[in-house]
Amino acid sequence: MKHSSAIADSIKRGFDMNHSMIRYVVGAVLCFESIFLCLPMLIGFVCGEKSAFAFMICAVLCLVFGGAMVLRKPKSNVFYATEGFVSVSISWIALSLFGALPFWISREIPRFEDALFEAISGFTTTGATILDDVEALSRCCIFWRSFTHWIGGMGVLVFVLAVFPLRGGNIMFLMKAESPGPSVEKLVPRVKNTALILYGVYTAMTVLEILLLWITGMHFFDAVNLGLATAGTGGFGILNDSAASYASVHQVILTVFMILFGVNFNIYYLILVKRAKDIWHSEELKTYFGIILASGLLIAYNIRHIFPNPLEALKHSFFQVGSIITTTGFSTADFNEWPLFSCSILVLLMFCGACAGSTGGGMKVSRIIIMVKTAVKEVFTIKHPHGIKTLKIDGRVVEHETVRSVNTFVVIYALLFAGSALLVSLDNFDFTTTFTAVAATINNIGPGLSKVGPMGNFSIFSPFSKVVLMFDMLAGRLELMPMIVLFSPLIWSKDR
Amino acid sequence: MKHSSAIADSIKRGFDMNHSMIRYVVGAVLCFESIFLCLPMLIGFVCGEKSAFAFMICAVLCLVFGGAMVLRKPKSNVFYATEGFVSVSISWIALSLFGALPFWISREIPRFEDALFEAISGFTTTGATILDDVEALSRCCIFWRSFTHWIGGMGVLVFVLAVFPLRGGNIMFLMKAESPGPSVEKLVPRVKNTALILYGVYTAMTVLEILLLWITGMHFFDAVNLGLATAGTGGFGILNDSAASYASVHQVILTVFMILFGVNFNIYYLILVKRAKDIWHSEELKTYFGIILASGLLIAYNIRHIFPNPLEALKHSFFQVGSIITTTGFSTADFNEWPLFSCSILVLLMFCGACAGSTGGGMKVSRIIIMVKTAVKEVFTIKHPHGIKTLKIDGRVVEHETVRSVNTFVVIYALLFAGSALLVSLDNFDFTTTFTAVAATINNIGPGLSKVGPMGNFSIFSPFSKVVLMFDMLAGRLELMPMIVLFSPLIWSKDR
Repeated sequence: MKHSSAIADSIKRGFDMNHSMIRYVVGAVLCFESIFLCLPMLIGFVCGEKSAFAFMICAVLCLVFGGAMVLRKPKSNVFYATEGFVSVSISWIALSLFGALPFWISREIPRFEDALFEAISGFTTTGATILDDVEALSRCCIFWRSFTHWIGGMGVLVFVLAVFPLRGGNIMFLMKAESPGPSVEKLVPRVKNTALILYGVYTAMTVLEILLLWITGMHFFDAVNLGLATAGTGGFGILNDSAASYASVHQVILTVFMILFGVNFNIYYLILVKRAKDIWHSEELKTYFGIILASGLLIAYNIRHIFPNPLEALKHSFFQVGSIITTTGFSTADFNEWPLFSCSILVLLMFCGACAGSTGGGMKVSRIIIMVKTAVKEVFTIKHPHGIKTLKIDGRVVEHETVRSVNTFVVIYALLFAGSALLVSLDNFDFTTTFTAVAATINNIGPGLSKVGPMGNFSIFSPFSKVVLMFDMLAGRLELMPMIVLFSPLIWSKDR
Repeated sequence: MKHSSAIADSIKRGFDMNHSMIRYVVGAVLCFESIFLCLPMLIGFVCGEKSAFAFMICAVLCLVFGGAMVLRKPKSNVFYATEGFVSVSISWIALSLFGALPFWISREIPRFEDALFEAISGFTTTGATILDDVEALSRCCIFWRSFTHWIGGMGVLVFVLAVFPLRGGNIMFLMKAESPGPSVEKLVPRVKNTALILYGVYTAMTVLEILLLWITGMHFFDAVNLGLATAGTGGFGILNDSAASYASVHQVILTVFMILFGVNFNIYYLILVKRAKDIWHSEELKTYFGIILASGLLIAYNIRHIFPNPLEALKHSFFQVGSIITTTGFSTADFNEWPLFSCSILVLLMFCGACAGSTGGGMKVSRIIIMVKTAVKEVFTIKHPHGIKTLKIDGRVVEHETVRSVNTFVVIYALLFAGSALLVSLDNFDFTTTFTAVAATINNIGPGLSKVGPMGNFSIFSPFSKVVLMFDMLAGRLELMPMIVLFSPLIWSKDR
């Protein structure tokens, strides 16, 4: 026995995974999914679509399975990091499996692996599709795709925490496992209230966007779908050309809201409680807007020859930058055709991602800041080997554990990326397609370059590659550890 | 003043960069380069080539400049990490500048930036060339290209340490800054003797390879050049098709020696002092051979249809794997045309690199091991939050500082890679060319894919991109920090 002291330690604590609590959490998630499924069902019935029955069947199935799982209260309230990670990853897989069923049962997506890909792409707010013709879908299916973005954006467990009587242990671990960013803060002492505030702001902003799009002349159904997909920074379009054929005013509204949903929601909370002044202390926010401004201007300059006037170039540039850095994935132009410098900036933004605590994916701006500061600190340490070695953000010292976890994150991220790219390369597409397909899924963007560019889709891949990319989407959305923990023999092995 | 406590600390130590010592080290390096340059000069005169005069001029120039710099002994012997890094990076730049002159003066490479690219590519053992027609070069120039590989392979400062009376401070910092790998061990208590042993083994193995190639029928001049280039894991070929037209027996010899030169030289020292049994404790060695075996077999299977028989496929597969993992960069086949799965394996091997303490580049196998173990430890820590958190290699605990420096290395590496790719993308080649050109230079490989594949070369890039790639080659060879420190304002700013 190698890790004997750790094992002794865990036995002392009486540690054993709390299966009943995990079952209970997953059950709660399924119950909520049952309610969520009623919305597309209603839309389907109103529009007289046959697919509505598929949603009805799935809603019932979810209720039966979920209900059975929450019927018995968990035996124990013990809840640690392992339980948090495992609950979250199983919940998301269950959510996706049941969320894929309507597509499949209605035969709108005939192959189950495709339906599952679409559902995972939806919940993880990736927005990568396997559909050649999105416009052929029924309205209820289109709405369900957009709605999955909205549910996945802020996190389904955050929702459960907000409205479900979940108690015991340290349920903060649930939120930690689901929320993006290197560290999760509670806005208010109670987890439940924090979750409520987050969902309140989220809903209000979504409604505001939908109203703005509607007032400026967009069809109501389109406005609702785009609003939901923007809020979750998802990116499923409802037209085959994504957002290219919308009016300029709508494209500008989308740009603004994409960027707003990429901001840390704590910022909005600060505005709500009238502490707006504190916002200017946020290095992450300043960096986020700085990156958007710099990238937008550089790309606009780089593509100025493609468009009739500079304003047009700026509009398309900022739309794409906002869409990619927030990992939404809408597009108004086929940036695959843009000069490589612009493409490279966009690919780098894919990895950068939005702010921590937003609905966006990627590595998060705060991690990039910590990475850069780590590098600067390293140079500084060479000059002053005995100098202080702290790293500050917003004037406060970043805990050593956070820095360590960011570095570890980068390492695991690189390993997962390399492994995934290798497996997907078995399909023998070109290097760019393979590399950016993995980048677009692991960072929850949607489109990549070449064959998976804005005008392409993911139907070209083999079922095996699709499974790899599905794993990457989930791992990316849950920031690696939950999915890796779930499939790690280390966690499931008995300690005796 | 932000880092006031560190500054106070440095003032207390009376810290100030020891410029005279740096000058002295760089001077010593130039003196040695003057001697090195006499070899191609002699070859040129023997063959009656005009270019020999260019080498003579440069040898004299090196002696004059170098001599002037070592004339006065350094005022102080203080020698810390900063001095180590700065000395090494300036030495390598000076070495390359003077090493480029013969190509330029002889007009064999008419543009200075190209000559400099070729020299840096030589010394850093990259082997990326800007020449369309290598065979048109004079013999003295061809020999100088191969010889730069040999000099750069084991490190010019290691050579200086071995034979020059350099004393004072902690000159181990020089070796640390130049030697590859996360940690440098002294084989014997004195740095000078360690350096002597390393160069002894290095020379013996080179001679052995040259003899083997010669005995099996290769022309002596070819054998010498290939021997030197293999030893330094460089990869400059002397034929336009790299190693494709050599006999199978020579290709096999090259494969074996490429792989041998990718092994940590400590291993050979252990064999020398009859402690061969200890070798089997080396996880890095086992992993290194494991990766080569697995990659070779996978690629051979993947490309079996391209070649007439399995043996041929195995030969080409293992040659390419050995060439890429050791970052040599010879090729017997245009792997750019191979299936993407094989290409992907090769691209991953580019990043993996050879063993620490070898002449190869890349991130080094030991860093990959530490990365993987960091990931495993992270999962373990989730299950046992209070468990032990040590990381072991070869049964010994890896110091926390080493793990931290590996993680920081990965972070800085990723940032440098991203920045370089962005700058090179201004040339507007395709994504694959740009990405693999940076990968092939930062990892000191030589060829990449697409336009910089085994049958392409680096002449296509703009002077600006060439400068970026030159920086990457030097940064890659010196493992990032020396070059970054040299160009960091942090180091050069006065502390007052």
